[in-house]
Amino acid sequence: MFRTAEVGRRISKSDYKQREPLLSQELLDVQQALRSSGQFPVIIAFAGVDGGGKGELVNRLSKWMDPRWLVSRAYDEPSDEERERPEYWRFWRDLPPKGRIGLFLRSWYSQPLLDKVYKRIDMAEFDRRLDRIIAFENALADDGAVILKFWMHLSQDAQKQRLQSLEKDPLTRWKIKATSWEHWRMYDRFLETAEHTIMRTSNGKAPFTIVEGVDIYYRSLTVGAIIRDAIRKRLEDVELEDQLKATRLAGNGNGENPPPIPVPEIIPTSASPAVRTTVPSILSQLDMNQQMDKATFKEELKKYQAKLNLLHHEARARKISTILVFEGPDAAGKGGTIHRITGALEASNYQVLPFASPTDEERAHHYFWRFWRHLARGGRFTIFDRSWYGRVLVERVEGFATQAEWTRAYAEINDFEAQLIDHGIVLMKYWLHVTQEEQLARFKAREQTPHKRWKLTDEDWRNREKWPAYEQAVHDMVQNTSTRTAPWTLVEGNDKYFARIKVLKTLCKQLESRLAKASKG
Amino acid sequence: MFRTAEVGRRISKSDYKQREPLLSQELLDVQQALRSSGQFPVIIAFAGVDGGGKGELVNRLSKWMDPRWLVSRAYDEPSDEERERPEYWRFWRDLPPKGRIGLFLRSWYSQPLLDKVYKRIDMAEFDRRLDRIIAFENALADDGAVILKFWMHLSQDAQKQRLQSLEKDPLTRWKIKATSWEHWRMYDRFLETAEHTIMRTSNGKAPFTIVEGVDIYYRSLTVGAIIRDAIRKRLEDVELEDQLKATRLAGNGNGENPPPIPVPEIIPTSASPAVRTTVPSILSQLDMNQQMDKATFKEELKKYQAKLNLLHHEARARKISTILVFEGPDAAGKGGTIHRITGALEASNYQVLPFASPTDEERAHHYFWRFWRHLARGGRFTIFDRSWYGRVLVERVEGFATQAEWTRAYAEINDFEAQLIDHGIVLMKYWLHVTQEEQLARFKAREQTPHKRWKLTDEDWRNREKWPAYEQAVHDMVQNTSTRTAPWTLVEGNDKYFARIKVLKTLCKQLESRLAKASKG
Repeated sequence: MFRTAEVGRRISKSDYKQREPLLSQELLDVQQALRSSGQFPVIIAFAGVDGGGKGELVNRLSKWMDPRWLVSRAYDEPSDEERERPEYWRFWRDLPPKGRIGLFLRSWYSQPLLDKVYKRIDMAEFDRRLDRIIAFENALADDGAVILKFWMHLSQDAQKQRLQSLEKDPLTRWKIKATSWEHWRMYDRFLETAEHTIMRTSNGKAPFTIVEGVDIYYRSLTVGAIIRDAIRKRLEDVELEDQLKATRLAGNGNGENPPPIPVPEIIPTSASPAVRTTVPSILSQLDMNQQMDKATFKEELKKYQAKLNLLHHEARARKISTILVFEGPDAAGKGGTIHRITGALEASNYQVLPFASPTDEERAHHYFWRFWRHLARGGRFTIFDRSWYGRVLVERVEGFATQAEWTRAYAEINDFEAQLIDHGIVLMKYWLHVTQEEQLARFKAREQTPHKRWKLTDEDWRNREKWPAYEQAVHDMVQNTSTRTAPWTLVEGNDKYFARIKVLKTLCKQLESRLAKASKG
Repeated sequence: MFRTAEVGRRISKSDYKQREPLLSQELLDVQQALRSSGQFPVIIAFAGVDGGGKGELVNRLSKWMDPRWLVSRAYDEPSDEERERPEYWRFWRDLPPKGRIGLFLRSWYSQPLLDKVYKRIDMAEFDRRLDRIIAFENALADDGAVILKFWMHLSQDAQKQRLQSLEKDPLTRWKIKATSWEHWRMYDRFLETAEHTIMRTSNGKAPFTIVEGVDIYYRSLTVGAIIRDAIRKRLEDVELEDQLKATRLAGNGNGENPPPIPVPEIIPTSASPAVRTTVPSILSQLDMNQQMDKATFKEELKKYQAKLNLLHHEARARKISTILVFEGPDAAGKGGTIHRITGALEASNYQVLPFASPTDEERAHHYFWRFWRHLARGGRFTIFDRSWYGRVLVERVEGFATQAEWTRAYAEINDFEAQLIDHGIVLMKYWLHVTQEEQLARFKAREQTPHKRWKLTDEDWRNREKWPAYEQAVHDMVQNTSTRTAPWTLVEGNDKYFARIKVLKTLCKQLESRLAKASKG
């Protein structure tokens, strides 16, 4: 979940200087529009590791916007006054009214997180406290509030460097608390708890965004742009709704035709110039030059196919099912890799399910229905050649799914996969990657080869133009769905030999460890 | 929560014979409209005590509607096939497509409930399973599904009679399972578990309705009417949304004014003649003739005020706060009762908060904000003369809150009160009742008394006309918010002496038991 926030996303100082005034003006504009509409409040919570720049960010946002219409709060240990009331009293008291924005540091997330990390509460109690958060945010969102949550992330090394540099400077030394280094030493536990928190509480109504916290320019512009877009989007929606209500009333009142609805001036929400060009993504971290020579490949293939064959018989006998998900750009070699797997399996024991557009029947159900229906009996292999991730990849990029739909899909996907894993299923998710150049070479080779030409469609060429959008979608997908129990395996696929062996090897390893656990259990 | 479903609601056979064909026709009509719209599925789950008539109800609904477009399922112990997949596989598989209705017996609620009642799982695991239900229903509702859930209730005595009569008849004897009597003996545990389930999983998106199961005519017509209204309502909403989208597209396409939206033909959802006149409500169960003579009253008043005074000092010392909620019709005597309480308290230790229309500032916040802000420090008494229940009483009846708003308010109220109680606060909720006749007599007396005349407004007279609507709202309020930890106390208020002493007595009792618990703790 957090690897995506360790890829070194930066914005240069000169870029920043150029973009900042624009973003600041846009934020002032939406803040003003929000105020004059007076229809809903905006609630923004900041969480993250110490030194991730939460406080600085709140200062910067207050500078960019008009502080008179901002509420900003940070919560420490509850005061006597606060302790004498239910925990949420202080949060309710400080909520911004409609038309205003509230920025919350060390918010309702802080205490449950710390209590769990310090083992003052167990998992059941932690979940109970998260339920309370969900109920709180739901009540506000149902009432129309825009809720945004940011997790400012640093790798453990980056956090160390940040703490050290803050300590060195006399002007910032005060920022280092007694607990800062203590928390740093408990880094893993913090992250594990944070992952659980984000998975449980991030949903379409109140999404969590993980932000890479190393570069001050990047994190400021990114968060600013997300806030700007979210408020703009809601303002548009509210305006349309109001017109609808007016029409309805007018129409029903006198029985005549209602007056025409004036078309609202839609402010574009997508891809403003202020951020969005902020590569690199997680994919840029892959060493795409990795290779394997043919002789080694042949040897390794034999070895791992034999191993997989044994393992799959054992898994069948013990009724442990395996689900493999393959995603990746066109011509990344998904088909060839799947062949090398099925070559090691018994025909009666697996299914390969290619997913393209849904059928009519599938379209008449919830998006997940078509994946549920294909879950196999105990002990089987099911290989999904493209999968439920279509929702957050192609459907997002092509606009087939609305933003609300693909945003809430992350939570739905995590819930679905948690059920698979709870049931004891082995789940492996492979992103088979190729670079844009390698893809082009493969497309051209396909054009030249008569029996492969059918594989290449106009759509494939069109998709290439949307490469940056797809790359962002993959980055967000990994961020939101690569969890401790269901991680993504990113496979460097420019060299097919290397890729196939990496897949076989990781699959065997996972199966082995699952079977070993089953033997112990 | 269940007392409201033990008031003996019945419909006579002749009434039923008259209404049934009408309701059946209406259900067929909405089913047909649903089919031709093809925009969303309808998912209906039936739960409840054995003998509550769940199966019969599903049969009847299938008879009333066109069974070709119904899916109906009942789940038993999972088969081998099912056990080899995650638990929810079978539910997903059977979901109705858009345009159809699914009726589910022994649904996703059945297994968790039984496991908890039989102590096969603990509370934490039970909550985890309820979380799964919530995630499942949320995903479906977010996708547009209409979800309705019914809990068919019988008192323990009524259940016994039902089981006995089923047993006697050779034609129905098969319905009595080995477990039926076993479950009957575990009645209390079932109800406690059911209450927790309903409180956690009932929300605006997927509301639970508790239905009195004694009378077959009543329960059938009631459930049928609720289904009819819910589908109608959604069909209207969807139609409006479609028009909106069309307008938006048309408008944005060419820059010209869009064509006027045709006003949809709104089918009235409220109060159709088919049901709704089904008094009695829980209020009809009160023995409104209870009285107390003046001499006894004076004696008792002295006694309980003295007691309350002692108790409130002790509570103050231990920082245990008390919150009292008073609701009731106009002229029920709330003010007089509150005087008798505050007469026993120290002035610095209590506040009386009368709630009427919200201020501008309050209106700019979430509905609950104005109640949160008034929570007092530890050890204080806060007396709410009218309260957060306004949402589901006056705002519902007068149409100030939308149906979506007051429906989801029940869950918000329960969540709010759970936080008060978790914090150790003593919460008492009093419904001070008077009959319509007594209210009239009091209104007339006020008219005659110069110094009381100001109390009587035109609105008071108008409210009288809506008595049946208010009575239904009170009934639903008690059903949805009278829980084991925060029950309503219904007070027979035709005789003021009797009412005041009942309130003082129950308040002292509750305080005493809370303080005793605190001493032990």
